Amino acid sequence: MEAEARTIDLLNQIRERSPLIHNITNFVVMNSSANILLAVGASPVMAHCQAEVEEMTSFAGALVLNIGTIQEDWLQSMIVAAQAANSRGIPVILDPVGAGATRLRTDAVKEIMASSSISVLRGNCSEVLSLASDVIKTRGVDSSLAMSAATVDAAKQMAVENGCVIAISGEEDLITDGERVYRVGNGHPVMARVTGTGCGLTAVTGAFCAVADGDLTTATAAAFGYYGLCGDLAAETSDKPASFQIAFIDRLYSTGRQAIEGRLKIKAV
Amino acid sequence: MEAEARTIDLLNQIRERSPLIHNITNFVVMNSSANILLAVGASPVMAHCQAEVEEMTSFAGALVLNIGTIQEDWLQSMIVAAQAANSRGIPVILDPVGAGATRLRTDAVKEIMASSSISVLRGNCSEVLSLASDVIKTRGVDSSLAMSAATVDAAKQMAVENGCVIAISGEEDLITDGERVYRVGNGHPVMARVTGTGCGLTAVTGAFCAVADGDLTTATAAAFGYYGLCGDLAAETSDKPASFQIAFIDRLYSTGRQAIEGRLKIKAV
Amino acid sequence: MEAEARTIDLLNQIRERSPLIHNITNFVVMNSSANILLAVGASPVMAHCQAEVEEMTSFAGALVLNIGTIQEDWLQSMIVAAQAANSRGIPVILDPVGAGATRLRTDAVKEIMASSSISVLRGNCSEVLSLASDVIKTRGVDSSLAMSAATVDAAKQMAVENGCVIAISGEEDLITDGERVYRVGNGHPVMARVTGTGCGLTAVTGAFCAVADGDLTTATAAAFGYYGLCGDLAAETSDKPASFQIAFIDRLYSTGRQAIEGRLKIKAV
Repeated sequence: MEAEARTIDLLNQIRERSPLIHNITNFVVMNSSANILLAVGASPVMAHCQAEVEEMTSFAGALVLNIGTIQEDWLQSMIVAAQAANSRGIPVILDPVGAGATRLRTDAVKEIMASSSISVLRGNCSEVLSLASDVIKTRGVDSSLAMSAATVDAAKQMAVENGCVIAISGEEDLITDGERVYRVGNGHPVMARVTGTGCGLTAVTGAFCAVADGDLTTATAAAFGYYGLCGDLAAETSDKPASFQIAFIDRLYSTGRQAIEGRLKIKAV
Repeated sequence: MEAEARTIDLLNQIRERSPLIHNITNFVVMNSSANILLAVGASPVMAHCQAEVEEMTSFAGALVLNIGTIQEDWLQSMIVAAQAANSRGIPVILDPVGAGATRLRTDAVKEIMASSSISVLRGNCSEVLSLASDVIKTRGVDSSLAMSAATVDAAKQMAVENGCVIAISGEEDLITDGERVYRVGNGHPVMARVTGTGCGLTAVTGAFCAVADGDLTTATAAAFGYYGLCGDLAAETSDKPASFQIAFIDRLYSTGRQAIEGRLKIKAV
Repeated sequence: MEAEARTIDLLNQIRERSPLIHNITNFVVMNSSANILLAVGASPVMAHCQAEVEEMTSFAGALVLNIGTIQEDWLQSMIVAAQAANSRGIPVILDPVGAGATRLRTDAVKEIMASSSISVLRGNCSEVLSLASDVIKTRGVDSSLAMSAATVDAAKQMAVENGCVIAISGEEDLITDGERVYRVGNGHPVMARVTGTGCGLTAVTGAFCAVADGDLTTATAAAFGYYGLCGDLAAETSDKPASFQIAFIDRLYSTGRQAIEGRLKIKAV
């Protein structure tokens, strides 16, 4: 149970060290992402103004970027912050919300990734695959076929091309650094009926990576496993979205070793 | 029970078709409106940047505009989006939050309505009546007298002048297209103690109109009836605001035909 | 029990008069601050656009400024609104979120305080002390030593220098106008695991000050005592953050004289 031990260890470290997670995220989820990070044990800060992002990143254990309600000045702040994070060597987690849906969003992600190094790219299948290079796309990946063999191949190649972890949320999640591949089976369908659940996972991935001391692939898999497991457990309390969300955040706060042992569905494949 | 059948049919269609509702709304309610739309069964997207609103609207089943924390660039985006929605023929729902309170807000609504066609204008009595033309105002409407005969006349004339549905929330709601008039008696006083309840109704009206195939007047009445009924039912769980809100969103998710039958207070008058 | 009578009286006045509280606050807490103010009985409005802040302040009983996600144009709006509030003689409550952490934030607070009169400055110890003048700082205040004798002296001198109430949240809170000093012992540790709890207290302080008719020092102490007590009571329902927050807002709504009597920990020292 290597993945289990890794998850418990990282979770404990988050709770002990309470890393500052610098978020430049969208208006919809600022509140929920902050509460999710606090529940897990991290210290969230939201700061988007170009005049302060470099300074704020200098205190942080990880930088989380999310383009959900992107506009030009925020994009420039994300780039400045990402470059500052790169020069300090802290992880940068990027959530390409809506990439592929509008040119603004697709281009924003590409601009961030062209001007800085991203550590983890976390999105759903269509968002992530919309960012694949032409080389990958010409192989005929169908983004509606979540987790097909072609998707896995595309994700692996994207990881190699960008030197980052690719993390795709779905019924079963996929995490790969181009070499290792993990699948995570935790999580509950009602999570899709609560806004910001995916964005919250991106933030929590930031917290796990902040204390990972290097291996971000297993840290990302651990974040996915833990987050999904808390969803599984919360769904035992309620499967209706609003009361589920309350139970879920409570679970992110209260779930520890005992509830984790034997329940993570993280598989190396 | 024509209104009942219409409500159940539209609700089922929302849940089957999951229409994308494009919201350009205020900072206060972005999260709650998204959760409310998800609970009802629609797919919310929040996107305000002028560079993408036209593209985003092109995927949407309805456009919801809300001036709650308006600023100049957002107003311009609303106008661009409304014009795109008009050219595609999808419904545009406008919530004139705070119209009448400041010139900025009153003027913003007037600018939107002068440069595009609004399908439904939903607000409280003073907000809506602050937008009445001078012709209507000189008849001496007193906006503090909610739902007086003079209010109904003013609302009907506003509907005709603007070619839209006028929907006024109050103890008893008023929906009119200038000819037909509906009153809706569902809803609970504690809803006024939860921020974004009115804005959430505007968003849900968008979802009902997105699947209405034409008749937006009955779709608006259906949205009001359903939303208010879920409030009635949630208040049986709790009449305190925060726990009420949780029960309310859960109810928006779980309420179907069985709970609706015999409980809607929608009257054609 | 002077403080108790004062708290109950102000609370009753908020519920009777429902003062409009004009907030220019950060994106993270807009929703929660609005719900907190509604629960207490006040009428919140969020409006940040420079074109309307002066007009909006003219209707308000208090102005609440919060620099949590500050950017240049919002700062200018805060200054315009604060000056409008000053000329009308209504209280201005300022929350210096993150002051001391970045130059942008420290400078923003200093610019607001240099260009207008603040009635109450409410923050945590390090935020508030980061704003102390060089005269005070050279005395060697250690902001990590919350509520040390040196902190109390610094707070008193800051109150005198700025002609305002200094209100510092901590395990035990400190409120001083330079002469009188109050300590408040209500409140529960889980409050620190819910985002916006401090910002919500700043907003509630605005509501208490809006009906205080002059003595803002005791009004601030009353706000702290009431808010902390509702936290104490809510923690009896749940000590996990999300369900705590629901219970807390419900308590802010339902707590009255009976639950208050004998439970406030407000001490004049």
